[in-house]
Amino acid sequence: MRGFGSYLIAMDERTYKIIGVDYPGNKPEDVINPGLWWMIGFLFVVSFLGLFSLVPLRKVMILDYKLTYPSGTATAMLINSFHDNSGAELARVQVKCLGKYLSLSFLWSCFKWFFSGIGDSCGFDHFPTLGLTLYKNTFYFDFSPTFIGCGLICPHLVNCSVLLGAIISWGFLWPFISQHAGDWYPAHLEANDFKGLYGYKVFIAIAIILGDGLYNIIKIVIVTVKELYNKSSNRQQDLPVFTDTLDESHETAESLLEKKKRDEVFLKDRIPLGFAVSGYVCLAAVSTATIPMIFPPLKWYFVLCSYLLAPALAFCNSYGAGLTDMSLPSTYGKIGLFTIASIVGSNGGVIAGLAACGVMMTIVSTAADLMQDFKTGYLTLSSAKSMFVTQLLGTAMGCVIAPLTFWLFWTAFDIGDPDGLYKAPYAVIYREMAILGVEGFAKLPKHCLALCCGFFVAALIVNLVRDVTPLKVSKFVPLPMAMAAPFYIGAYFAIDMFVGSVVLFLWQRVNKKDADDYSGAVASGLICGDGIWTIPSAILSILRINPPICMHFGPS
Amino acid sequence: MRGFGSYLIAMDERTYKIIGVDYPGNKPEDVINPGLWWMIGFLFVVSFLGLFSLVPLRKVMILDYKLTYPSGTATAMLINSFHDNSGAELARVQVKCLGKYLSLSFLWSCFKWFFSGIGDSCGFDHFPTLGLTLYKNTFYFDFSPTFIGCGLICPHLVNCSVLLGAIISWGFLWPFISQHAGDWYPAHLEANDFKGLYGYKVFIAIAIILGDGLYNIIKIVIVTVKELYNKSSNRQQDLPVFTDTLDESHETAESLLEKKKRDEVFLKDRIPLGFAVSGYVCLAAVSTATIPMIFPPLKWYFVLCSYLLAPALAFCNSYGAGLTDMSLPSTYGKIGLFTIASIVGSNGGVIAGLAACGVMMTIVSTAADLMQDFKTGYLTLSSAKSMFVTQLLGTAMGCVIAPLTFWLFWTAFDIGDPDGLYKAPYAVIYREMAILGVEGFAKLPKHCLALCCGFFVAALIVNLVRDVTPLKVSKFVPLPMAMAAPFYIGAYFAIDMFVGSVVLFLWQRVNKKDADDYSGAVASGLICGDGIWTIPSAILSILRINPPICMHFGPS
Repeated sequence: MRGFGSYLIAMDERTYKIIGVDYPGNKPEDVINPGLWWMIGFLFVVSFLGLFSLVPLRKVMILDYKLTYPSGTATAMLINSFHDNSGAELARVQVKCLGKYLSLSFLWSCFKWFFSGIGDSCGFDHFPTLGLTLYKNTFYFDFSPTFIGCGLICPHLVNCSVLLGAIISWGFLWPFISQHAGDWYPAHLEANDFKGLYGYKVFIAIAIILGDGLYNIIKIVIVTVKELYNKSSNRQQDLPVFTDTLDESHETAESLLEKKKRDEVFLKDRIPLGFAVSGYVCLAAVSTATIPMIFPPLKWYFVLCSYLLAPALAFCNSYGAGLTDMSLPSTYGKIGLFTIASIVGSNGGVIAGLAACGVMMTIVSTAADLMQDFKTGYLTLSSAKSMFVTQLLGTAMGCVIAPLTFWLFWTAFDIGDPDGLYKAPYAVIYREMAILGVEGFAKLPKHCLALCCGFFVAALIVNLVRDVTPLKVSKFVPLPMAMAAPFYIGAYFAIDMFVGSVVLFLWQRVNKKDADDYSGAVASGLICGDGIWTIPSAILSILRINPPICMHFGPS
Repeated sequence: MRGFGSYLIAMDERTYKIIGVDYPGNKPEDVINPGLWWMIGFLFVVSFLGLFSLVPLRKVMILDYKLTYPSGTATAMLINSFHDNSGAELARVQVKCLGKYLSLSFLWSCFKWFFSGIGDSCGFDHFPTLGLTLYKNTFYFDFSPTFIGCGLICPHLVNCSVLLGAIISWGFLWPFISQHAGDWYPAHLEANDFKGLYGYKVFIAIAIILGDGLYNIIKIVIVTVKELYNKSSNRQQDLPVFTDTLDESHETAESLLEKKKRDEVFLKDRIPLGFAVSGYVCLAAVSTATIPMIFPPLKWYFVLCSYLLAPALAFCNSYGAGLTDMSLPSTYGKIGLFTIASIVGSNGGVIAGLAACGVMMTIVSTAADLMQDFKTGYLTLSSAKSMFVTQLLGTAMGCVIAPLTFWLFWTAFDIGDPDGLYKAPYAVIYREMAILGVEGFAKLPKHCLALCCGFFVAALIVNLVRDVTPLKVSKFVPLPMAMAAPFYIGAYFAIDMFVGSVVLFLWQRVNKKDADDYSGAVASGLICGDGIWTIPSAILSILRINPPICMHFGPS
């Protein structure tokens, strides 16, 4: 349901007018104003596709790849803590530990709120912990319990990969490119202009994600085909199909037993492959037929192509979210936007691109959310089937409620007015992006395409190296997907996760057993406490209660 | 040796000129410029008096009153940690714990430094932890490891007394008096003007300190006389002479044994009463003869009177420092300054007052420092005699080195120039104070004297209540001396100490044994780590390296 503020408003008349009639490529015929009925229809045909797209890969991602999904894991531990009847001493202490860190994290988030002011650079989120110079390059520790918790849950390799990605991008690549401002790209552009540094950031991140995603999809296909062949030729093999170096756990007999139980419950409740595939095909067919009616420039064959590619992108996003807790639907939305806008061209490419963006964003975000929920379900021994059904019900409700709410706001207020109460800054950016897309890749800044190709190939090679080298080497080879997230977002969360990683490392050194037993509980507490604070924080924001103090940092 | 920047520069010509020739009461004949020889002479005759003044009360303050002297205790634990050869597991873990918290505290102080900027309101020392409103009334938690450590070492009653004092003064009394600005005292005065709110703060704090001090001196005299009478009449009594409710320790057999050993070592090495008294008398005689030669307006009988009163004030300061770690020589200096200046009057009262201020400051600060060192010596099983001798040697060295350094600076730079490198803001304040003193108590702001009398009597009564009520009541009666410190300094350190107290309380609740075993080590680590940071901090300051970042707080 996300993206209303970006691609939908980007299509409307107000955004068209804000960008200006004189803006080249901004045409009055590329305007579609939000309407309640078509929005509901659009969401209905698109949202469910995301749910069906990755169901067959559930086992691969959760059991074989052992992806952590930090937020999902944290939720699962919180849920488990409510239902613990085993009476085991360890579980009791774990629950206590979770509760303690949940409270601490909640109180800390609350404390941070008071100093976060109104301005753009107030509060702990802008604490130049490592100095102002590094802060300007987004290197700072921002005291976020969520990401520290993620760092505690994610394997060290993921955290180090994220940090490495941050150092490569924000430490070297962006400063290097910035030095060529005026030559490689026009200087004095706005921060969010794709013709400048922002273009490099987004497209290089996309290139790495696509490279890693492609590699893994091919790998899954090959392994699956092999497995099927082995089965058909009746040669039973009990060797693990995927040997992934991410698995750092050294399990005790007890936890192995527990794991076995989880695996059994998880696998028992199969969602048939046929059901998932036929569901996806049916929905895609309906969608292919209806979407061109809503957005005339988006022809049915484009929609069809999108649905052929969507599962691959959905996989990439779910894989990335599983590794780093970072779901990046807007990135995948941009892939759809640029590709379709550039193919359709000036004859309606803006609307087609924005619509494709909406389709992609919805599919990849619901797919990643679903996979995260499957992880939670796996850890809480929930029935996968009933989870899936509930998800379908929830999605259906969302498809009605979300457009209704948005439509009420849209008709009642001047949404998108830059001087008004409800600014929609992303609407303008997305429309400009679409206009840029129509002009094609040639309009991208200098060397951007070459750099993208380089990083795409590098991602493939790094993955290959991980798979062909022996474990003692490959366990130190970074994960390109984890490296891509900070390229786009910034280095601060990489620092947070690395701090979590260092804490875990030291803890394991000091007391291995304690660390293994309680680090998950501590991390879950940190993540959930921070998450719970978002509720009062949202209420305060609705009531227009601003934080009273601005903690500001400047050179002395 | 402290106070050079205040009372000495206050006498010189530059300060006279800064205040202005037209300032009423600021007369050219009240000027004495620093001179190397008389400064050395002055310090020699005065400094040693402080050392001799309280030696006879050593046993009362350390063994009977069980004063904590947090910094002294912390130093002792640090020293003990270097010399631990007992091989006991507990001691080993305590040393480790001390080392850990020392490092943490040091790193934290270092981290804080980076954000403390150049301005007056930068950094963690100005963190409005409890909101901006309370911050304006000095109520905030300033993340100071030293005072948190003090809070861990001091008994809960002391911490709560300090907080109560802060609430009474900064929470109610000062805001109440401020409301009468313009009526009780002229509005728009500078913050350090004695004719305004600052006068109330200083004199009320002095009144409480004198009230509590007087009560305790009388009590000590009575108890000592009783004891001597009992001894002379050969009635042995083993009951403790002082029953003080401060003692919250619940000692184990082991720690009792250790305590007995410490007491033995401490008492074995007696410094004879006769030696201390005759030393004091001789020094006072020499001093009485020489000081009027240096400062002609300070007649010999004033000096003599000062020396009769000095031990009492020295006791007050040592007692207060033992309770709260706050040595307040400038407060006692002000007592001397105002009393002498008002008695001498317009004929040289300014110089006489400032000289008396110097005498008092030197005596009470050396006395408190010595008592703190005795506490360290007691805990480290050091010989009291050799400590005393070393202290004499050190003082002699200081009496030469300090004036020499000061004199070099004074001749080389424009010390006291408000636009120069070495401003001496206190010099002006002290001179103005002396001029005010000459005009007498009548010039104090409205109701100030009445309030002082009230608090003086209140301090006596509260002490009486502590002594006449049964233990279960008296252990909840606050200590006036501990309440006085925040009256003058501000509430922030009371908050810090209270946080320490709460941490200790919770720790004792969760794990009594751990808290008893390690709280001292944690506190010492916190205090020493912060203390060690002052060395690099001073070096940075000498090298003129300023903190790079200013963390600033303002309304949003």
